Formats: sequence, C-alpha cells, structure tokens
Amino acid sequence: MLHFDSDYMEGAHPAIMKRLMETNMEQTPGYGTDEYSNSAKEKIKKACNAPEAEVFFLMGGTQTNRTAIDGILRGYEGVLAAECGHISVHESGAIEAGGHKVLALPHERGKLKTKTVEDYLARFYQDANWPHMVIPGMLYVSHPTEYGAIYTKAELEGLHEVCKRYHIPMYIDGARLGYGLAADNTDVTLSDIARCCEAFYIGGTKVGALFGEALVFTNTKLVPHFFTTIKQHGGLLAKGRLLGLQFDTLFTDDLYMKISRRAIERARELKAGLKEKGYELFFESPTNQQFLIMENKKIEELKEKVSFGFWEVYDEKHTVVRIATGWATESADIRALLKLL
Amino acid sequence: MLHFDSDYMEGAHPAIMKRLMETNMEQTPGYGTDEYSNSAKEKIKKACNAPEAEVFFLMGGTQTNRTAIDGILRGYEGVLAAECGHISVHESGAIEAGGHKVLALPHERGKLKTKTVEDYLARFYQDANWPHMVIPGMLYVSHPTEYGAIYTKAELEGLHEVCKRYHIPMYIDGARLGYGLAADNTDVTLSDIARCCEAFYIGGTKVGALFGEALVFTNTKLVPHFFTTIKQHGGLLAKGRLLGLQFDTLFTDDLYMKISRRAIERARELKAGLKEKGYELFFESPTNQQFLIMENKKIEELKEKVSFGFWEVYDEKHTVVRIATGWATESADIRALLKLL
Amino acid sequence: MLHFDSDYMEGAHPAIMKRLMETNMEQTPGYGTDEYSNSAKEKIKKACNAPEAEVFFLMGGTQTNRTAIDGILRGYEGVLAAECGHISVHESGAIEAGGHKVLALPHERGKLKTKTVEDYLARFYQDANWPHMVIPGMLYVSHPTEYGAIYTKAELEGLHEVCKRYHIPMYIDGARLGYGLAADNTDVTLSDIARCCEAFYIGGTKVGALFGEALVFTNTKLVPHFFTTIKQHGGLLAKGRLLGLQFDTLFTDDLYMKISRRAIERARELKAGLKEKGYELFFESPTNQQFLIMENKKIEELKEKVSFGFWEVYDEKHTVVRIATGWATESADIRALLKLL
Amino acid sequence: MLHFDSDYMEGAHPAIMKRLMETNMEQTPGYGTDEYSNSAKEKIKKACNAPEAEVFFLMGGTQTNRTAIDGILRGYEGVLAAECGHISVHESGAIEAGGHKVLALPHERGKLKTKTVEDYLARFYQDANWPHMVIPGMLYVSHPTEYGAIYTKAELEGLHEVCKRYHIPMYIDGARLGYGLAADNTDVTLSDIARCCEAFYIGGTKVGALFGEALVFTNTKLVPHFFTTIKQHGGLLAKGRLLGLQFDTLFTDDLYMKISRRAIERARELKAGLKEKGYELFFESPTNQQFLIMENKKIEELKEKVSFGFWEVYDEKHTVVRIATGWATESADIRALLKLL
Repeated sequence: MLHFDSDYMEGAHPAIMKRLMETNMEQTPGYGTDEYSNSAKEKIKKACNAPEAEVFFLMGGTQTNRTAIDGILRGYEGVLAAECGHISVHESGAIEAGGHKVLALPHERGKLKTKTVEDYLARFYQDANWPHMVIPGMLYVSHPTEYGAIYTKAELEGLHEVCKRYHIPMYIDGARLGYGLAADNTDVTLSDIARCCEAFYIGGTKVGALFGEALVFTNTKLVPHFFTTIKQHGGLLAKGRLLGLQFDTLFTDDLYMKISRRAIERARELKAGLKEKGYELFFESPTNQQFLIMENKKIEELKEKVSFGFWEVYDEKHTVVRIATGWATESADIRALLKLL
Repeated sequence: MLHFDSDYMEGAHPAIMKRLMETNMEQTPGYGTDEYSNSAKEKIKKACNAPEAEVFFLMGGTQTNRTAIDGILRGYEGVLAAECGHISVHESGAIEAGGHKVLALPHERGKLKTKTVEDYLARFYQDANWPHMVIPGMLYVSHPTEYGAIYTKAELEGLHEVCKRYHIPMYIDGARLGYGLAADNTDVTLSDIARCCEAFYIGGTKVGALFGEALVFTNTKLVPHFFTTIKQHGGLLAKGRLLGLQFDTLFTDDLYMKISRRAIERARELKAGLKEKGYELFFESPTNQQFLIMENKKIEELKEKVSFGFWEVYDEKHTVVRIATGWATESADIRALLKLL
Repeated sequence: MLHFDSDYMEGAHPAIMKRLMETNMEQTPGYGTDEYSNSAKEKIKKACNAPEAEVFFLMGGTQTNRTAIDGILRGYEGVLAAECGHISVHESGAIEAGGHKVLALPHERGKLKTKTVEDYLARFYQDANWPHMVIPGMLYVSHPTEYGAIYTKAELEGLHEVCKRYHIPMYIDGARLGYGLAADNTDVTLSDIARCCEAFYIGGTKVGALFGEALVFTNTKLVPHFFTTIKQHGGLLAKGRLLGLQFDTLFTDDLYMKISRRAIERARELKAGLKEKGYELFFESPTNQQFLIMENKKIEELKEKVSFGFWEVYDEKHTVVRIATGWATESADIRALLKLL
Repeated sequence: MLHFDSDYMEGAHPAIMKRLMETNMEQTPGYGTDEYSNSAKEKIKKACNAPEAEVFFLMGGTQTNRTAIDGILRGYEGVLAAECGHISVHESGAIEAGGHKVLALPHERGKLKTKTVEDYLARFYQDANWPHMVIPGMLYVSHPTEYGAIYTKAELEGLHEVCKRYHIPMYIDGARLGYGLAADNTDVTLSDIARCCEAFYIGGTKVGALFGEALVFTNTKLVPHFFTTIKQHGGLLAKGRLLGLQFDTLFTDDLYMKISRRAIERARELKAGLKEKGYELFFESPTNQQFLIMENKKIEELKEKVSFGFWEVYDEKHTVVRIATGWATESADIRALLKLL
C-alpha cells in the first residue's frame, strides 16, 4: 500500500531519532530553558539572518497560529487572511475561540495580492461605519499556500509594505516553509521571509520533525510575556528539549533545506511522469503538493493500493486529489505510483 | 434640517414617555422581576401566539445578538449568517469575541435562500475534513434584512425546515421586526415568526422605544440559566422595569404594529414621490428603509438641509444613500424632503 | 409597603425626566455623537479637574467593568480585586468570560490595604514560577466598597503609588461614587478620584439616573479604539443622547452631589434612630448603605410592611440585612421604618 | 550534578523509545486515527474496567485541563477546585482564557473535603443572589494533589456522591496518577478512579512518556464533538500515533504501574534516609514528591551538586524544596543525594 495523503505520515528524520535516543536519559530543566533549545534558537536566528529575533518552539501548526495571533492582536482586532487560509477554514475556529474574527479575502490558489489587501484597508477606513466593525490588526499569509503556491520576493515585499503603511504586523504561516524555500524557481530565501514580516513560523511537523514549529518574532516588542501566553494556550511542552533537539538537528548542516529539496525533487519526478501519462494537473504547483484531477472510478479502483488526500469535488465524475511528497518519499515510491496510474 | 439617517434618531413614542413619567417614583424590585416586566412578557407571548415561550428584555441589538448566540452555541459551533448580516459586519466582532465564528453565506439583499443553507450543510458533512472545521450550530436570519428586504412565509418555513432536518436552531434578528410585519404585501405575521424559529427578538429601539429588545425563546430548553448569561454579558438592566414598561406599552392596543404601519405608509409616500421625480431606487424595498442612488454633487449640495445614511459607493460620481422612515416620521417631513430632491 | 432593598428601586431624578420629555422628539445622531453627550463629557471633565481625560457612557455597572477591564488588560493579564469585589462575586463571571482571571485579595469591609497589594506584587515576581501564572495587569478598587466603606485620600494615594511602581493601572468602580464623595468625614473629592487612578466610573444608575455610568479615562492611551470595544461588548446605546442628557443634568448645578448628600443625610437619620432603639449595626458605614443584624423572626414579622436587602447569614437566628437609602429617600420613609423596627 | 527538581527531566522509558524507533518510517493516517492509537485506547479502557468509555490523547497537562474543562462547561459555569489546584494557580489563567472562573475552595495539602464542596454548593443555592454569580458546573480534583497527597477510595466516593446530587460532573487531574495509584497504603485503583468521576486523565509526561496524557470520559455524552474541541484548542497532534504508541507501550504488561511503583520505592528510600539524618519533612507524602524544609545556606552550598524544585518560603532562613523521584530515578541517585545532605 502506497500513501500519498500528506507529508506527515512518517515519524521523524533518522538524524532526529538518533539524537532523541542518544540524549534520552539526560536530565534537563523543563519548558524550553535547556541548552538544546538555546542552541537551536541560535542556529535558527543565524539561518534567518535575524540576530535580534526571538524564537519560541510550539508543538503544532494550529497551536502556533492561535497562540501567535492571540498574542499579537488586541481584543478589537481581527486578522486578514485568504478565504482558504488554514486559520480561516481548517482550525475549528481556533482564532475565533480566542476572540478574533478572521477577515477573509479573495485569493488565487491561496495567494493574496497586494492590491487586495491594500484595497481592503483603504476602503475600511473610508467606510464611515468602521468603528462599528472589526479593525484589521494583522495580516496572515501562508508560504507556501494551502494550494502549494508560493509568493515571489517582490510579492512578499509588496504585502509587507502595505502592512507597514497601515501599521499592522505581517505574519507568515510556514507549516511547509522548507518546501516553499526549496520550490522550483523561487527567489525567496529564509532571510527574505524573516525580513518581510514581523513574525513567522518554520514548520517542523511536515518537514522532518516528529512534531514542532519554530515561531520567530523579528519584532520582539510585538508580544510581551509570550512565554505566559504559550502556557495559557496549552502550548508549553514540559520536556521542551524535545523541540530544541529536533530543531537543533534540522538546523545543523542545512538538514532542513536538504530534506526539503529532496521532497521537491520527488515532486518533479511525479509531475514529469504524470504529464507523460496525459494526466491533467488541477494547476501547476512548484512545491511538494500536487493536485490531480482523477476519475472517481479510478480512485475507487486503486483504493486498496494507494491513498491520496481528498481535496475537492471537481465534477460529478471527477475529484481533485492531493498527492504530497515529503522528506521521506523515495523515487521508488514515485515510480510505483506512476505505474498504478 | 431634515434627518433621514436612521430610524433611531428620536426618543420614544409619547405613550411610553407618559408611562415612564407616571411610574417614575414607584419602587419596584430590580432586574426585570417587577410586575411591568411580567405583564409585558405575557402580552408578548399572547401576541406571538406562543404561550409556552420565554421572554427576556435586553437593551440593544448587538447585545441581544451576542448574548442569545453565545447562550445557544457550544464552544465548537459557529453561526450561519448572510455575508451582510449585522452580526457578520457591524457588531465589531461581538460574536467572535464570544468565541464563535460567523459562517458567512452569499445572499440577495440580505436574504438567504433555503438552497444556500441546505447546500452548505450538506456539503459540510460530505467534506472528510469537517471535524477540523467550525460546526454550524445555528442559523441567523434578519427579518427585515439589513437591505430592508423581507422573507415570505414559505421562505421562512423552508429555512426552518432545513434547520430542523440538521437539528440546529434558527434565530431571527428582528431589530426592525415591526417594519417587516407591516411591510407592503407581506404574508408573515408575528405568530409565523414565532412558529418558524427557536428564538427571535422584537426590536424596540428602532420601533418606538427609547431602547430595548424583547428576546423570545420558543424553545425554552435551548438556553438554561439565561438570566445568568445576560448578567455575564453586561445586559442586565438594574431597573428592569424600564424595559417592561416600554414593551408593555408597545404591546397594548396593538401600538407596536400601528406605529410600524405608519412608518411604512411614509415610506410609500416617499417611493411614490421619488418615482415621480425620476429618481432611481437602488432596489425595490417593501419596508421603511429605502436605498437611493444619488449624485455626490447633490448630496454635497443638500448637506446643510437634509442628512441621509451612507450605504455604499455606487460609482465615482454616485453614492447609495439610505433614507429611513420611522414611527415618528410625518408626511410633512416626506413632502419637505421630496421638495429638496 | 416600604422598600429599602437597594438604591435603584425608583426611576430617575425628576430633573432628568423633565429633560428627557422636553427633548423627546428631537432628532440627534446616534451612538453618543450628539451635542448632549458632548456637553455632559465636558462638564464631567471639568468636575473631575481632568481636562485631558476621555469620557464614555455605558449602560450599567457590570457592563462598564467588563468593557473597561477587557479594554485595559492583555490576554495574559488578570485584575487584582478584593475577594468581595463586585467583579469577583456578583457579575456572573463577566471578567472571566472576557478571558481574564480576577486575582482575589483579602480585604476589610471591601477595602484593600496598600500593603496587601504591595506584598502580592512583590511576592509574585519573587516566585520562580511566575511566568506560569496570571500576570497582575491592573488593580480594581470599589469606592465606596460593596460594604459601604470608603478609602481616605491617603489610602487611595498609597494604592496608586504601588500601582505606578509596578506599572499597572488602577481602576475605581464608582457604582455609588456620589454616596462615597458625600460620605461622613471623607476627605476625598471627585478630582482626587480622577488623580488617583487611570480609569474610573461615576455611577448613575444608583445615583439619580434611569441607568448609565460615566467611564473616565484619565490616561487616554490606555485603551485605543475603545468605542469599538464598547460596541463589541454590546454596550453601545443607539440613542446615546439618553446617557448624555442624564449626565448633563446630573452635572449641572452640582445635582449629582446634592442628591448624594441627601441620601447620606437620610442614612444619618437612620443610624441615629437605630442606635436609639438599641439595634446593633453590623459595622459603622459612612455611606448610604447600612448593615443591620436582625432577628429572622423580626424580618419575617415585617415582611409585608418593609423589604430589605439580604446580605448574609449572621447566625442561626440572625441575618445581616442591608438598608439602602438613596437620592429618592424621604425623611418620612426613615421615620416610618424606625417606627416599625 | 544530581537533579531532583521534577519528574519530567528525562526523556521517555526505553521501551517507548524502542517502539518509536521501530515504527519511525511506517506511514499511518493522522490525528489519532491510526491503529496504535486504537490499540492504546482499548488497553486503557480495559485497565480502567470501563468498556464504554471514550479515550482521547493530548499533549500536556494544561492543554488537557483547558480542553476538557472548556468542553464540559457551558458559558455561565465555573469549575470548583482547590485554591492550590494546578488550574487555579499554575496554568497562566488557561481556564479563564476559555471564559470560565475557577471557584477556589480551601483545602488540606491540596485535598478537598466532601463537606467543603457540599457546603459550597448548598450555600450557593441558598444565596438569593446566585443567579448573578458563576454557577458551579463541575468539580476539579487532583489525584495525587499538587502536594503529593492522595484521596482514599471513600473520600473520592464521597466527593462524587455530592457531585451527583448536584448534577455536576467530577473531573480528576491525574498528571501523576501512576504515582498516586502506586502510593503507600492507598486503597484506590485505576478502576476506582474511572468509577468515581465522569472524566479524568492518566498522566504520561511525568510517568514515562516523552509527552502525552490520556483523557478518559466515562460519561461519553458529556462532550459532543470533542475531536473538534481538541483541534480548536490546538491540542490535536498531526502524527497522533506518537501518543498512541506511547500509551500502548505504557499499558502493555502493566508498564505504567511498574514504573510508578519503582518511583515510589525510591521515594521510600529517600524518606527513610532523610529521617535517619534528622531532616524535617514539610509533611508526610505517600507519593513521589517529597517536601523538605532546608536551610537556605545549605541549598546555596549544594547548588553546584544537586538541584531541587522550589516550593515555598518557609521562614527567613529556610525554604521548602520539592524532591521528586520518578520512573527514571535509581537507588544510586538517592544514595548520592543522601550523602550530600
């Protein structure tokens, strides 16, 4: 049985497992105050070219988003996001549970245009009734987006420019950041990401870690007492070193980027094979997620042999499925899949 | 200076003021446990033909919506509403502040189609990822809508039918309910409203009261300890009798409907006059709110003589303005306005 | 039947009713943007000797507390308050519903000692675990307290001094502020109140208004976008002028203090009469609330003739009852009550 | 350097690490829908003698408490807990952030007396003002308590009996449940725990797991859509099998109890040694946490050689320190510690 449902179906990269084993019986202080966490933070700041940044480790994407956004926003503020943004749709209302409206914007494959954000903000303050409305307090952007699309450097700079003009912070959800930075033809580096926002997170769960996300605040004044906010949100890991160790490993010898590139290479092999076979891609994705229009009959036929992620209904006879490669995908898996299709 | 900005620019109907004066020095117990409140509740239940209902008085629309919705929903649930619904746009995120997402639906002049709601619910539970999403826990409907449109009895029954099939309560925001029930060609009565939902409120603020809304639960099991919920939301008036007295007056001798009809009559006079003058209505509204496409130049020209409500930008040279008649509008006011236009 | 349960059993002072009647059919813009509200705000700032302050009108005490406190605090902060504080006990968890813990402190008849607050803050930051705890973000003080006690000027200054040292704002709940300022032997004036805190409210509901509280921010940077916060909390009155008119009246010709002094005079008459009759006061209160230890038998015996507020069980045979005088209490009422006791 | 600060200073029991390694490259579906999680749930239900129960895995104690309590309570309800309860003090206001007040009760070493709870509930409903107060909606009990004390079976039954009489669920925080069940002279078994409450959790973080808690609902109607509630709270682990695998291992061959008993054996050795040396225990604890009154001078002197948990200031010259043994503590560690003291 082949599984291409998602990029979080295996455990962790072997290098991580090795270090967890080696350090297992060591005693360290709790809550991320250990040396492994400190070391990981330093490496991340260096990789981001952001020596003044502050780094916090959390356990998962939704937890990171809700904690960061709740920490950033005041009670009367909401967060601008694409209609299909993870926080808009697939976090069970975590942002609203914290008291904040997600102000949904139209998008293209998950990408927001600078103009869309700019127009929203301009019109908002032109509306005489704005004090009766939720005040846009930050911008949420996914890179790559939920559709696997990526921004160019100029696009990120454009969005950030608008945010700065309106004095609102920009936040980047990097659940799959590695796959974005390793994507085909991207001109965006990790230090561009750090430069183009006030806060972002580097996803670990989907890029080689057992679990964990590294939240980076490049504007450290944004969230006083964030440790307490994490604790309040139930996001503080007692054995914080588990996160430290994982990110320390991922940010040693460029492992994070190496395994990200590997997944992109597999995606390229997949795309080439699909095109050869005449399959229609739902759209052209430069990252590790590929979206394929498949006959329902075919999906049914293959269901004992290969599993995909359900994306959306295409028409009565077709479904869009998601095929995700990941750090653990082998070329042999891709070949086996192509053979079945 | 003429004012047509809204239907809450005056104080209260003289009959209400009279009773407030007469009873001013009486001593009554607080928090709505007085005889005037009891009497008003009985009259409302009778008018609604809902002897088993429970009635609560609150102070304003946003307060009523946020308290009722927060009382009805569980933490994991959201409220379905039109994209232009008052709770979606003009309550500063009050619903989200209570922890709940407003699940915005497309609409026509504020009206939701049965099919829109039905499709949303059907598709929601077809999506394999629904447990990761906000569960639709109730339906919010405005009658009349924010655009002054009204539902037919069959439409309300249709919406209610879908709600019952999915076991979610339906709630009607009746901020201008009187004007809806008195509208041109409506077949909806107050007892239809009570029958077609689990909870609704009868707006007082915009229909003759100084302030106040009567929230009616026809399903009394929906919200245990609702008194405590009101208190928690800051909606419990110490001198609760003020609300009781107002609604007791409005529901004596059919005053609520009489003054509502009066406002509709004024709106008819206005529409007739506007058509005669060749003005273009943004759309045909059967209630007390009329939406007019005006040249910006004209608005500017008149601004010392008459004020309107800003509705939306129409094009570069035109604006949609709202003209609201109300219980206090006189035919003479309409004539004066028409003369200016 | 005599009623001494509370100080909010009647309507409003006749001067207020008169103005509401006179202005009833006037048209004014909504939400407190009218001239009456502006005038009232100016008069209040003058009476407070705080020309730079900002004033907002809300509808009731719980609403004011929850809105102000939620506006002031960040998510990780709680509010220090006496264990018996209104927000601690009698607001149905309104502060917690906004996400904030009430950090309860021991008190004496509702009064907090400077040392109590100081010790709490000092110990808090000495505790190595403080980042895992709710961070004290403001101090809530009632003046008069829920027991009718009052602070001296030096005591308020002392509390404020501690707050300033720890960079947290001090907030005074003045639900019965008039009765505190008119109390026997007080050295505290309205301008002392304004000087000794960052925010406070002047209670109207219990001091002559139909309803309404005037919230004063002497530190105007404390709460950006507070209008929006009020709206979100359901505290924005459509016909905001109703609040403006009431406070404008109360702050014309010193009416607020005049009627407050009147209530204190009645309380003095009551105390003198009770002592004469050998009744035991639960404690000596300088304000309009008196607490009397009564035999349950006696309460039962009188229940058709006079009503009191229940305060607490004293012992098996006795109950502490609250007798509240108010702006509307007449000497004749006191005499009639004393005759019965 | 010896560390006795807490029971979460090492990684996981070697048997857990072994299985994580063995299964690392397997692909499983996400969010706890995998076979390891199912197997662990079955084993836990069996160990609890609660075949009808529902089990959910979460990542940490605060997260479990806030998610469970928020799932159980309605908006107008609060949770009864000891003043020193973990939710009362050391969760940064996580319960209040969810909108609920922690109703703090006096305790003895963290234990609540049946009478304390009973009296609170009885008096609550006797107070005429209760509808203005937070309604007690559940009882939170820690077993063992934060002070390492344990309830007897009769005590747990007594508390549960009161809860049932008042129709509120009882919830047991079992962060250190294993150490409680393995304690000296306890008559409480895991199936007693399951029988004496509606919900509880079996702590993994402090008892052999890398991280993770198993939340058991014996009343499965208590929390509809709890999966969605977990997701909303940021508590849903993408690679849910990590939790499943850990608990499956802990509940195979009685490992959970075996390692718990081991920690208690170490605590016994410690206590015996301390008494021999004339040290004064702060109180007699039957579980893995011991509280020792130490001279500050001595603590300072030893700080390069051994670390303790700070508990509280005893007097100017003494501090109460916590010494925690755990599943990983060796007799040699205890001997080394005793040698230093």
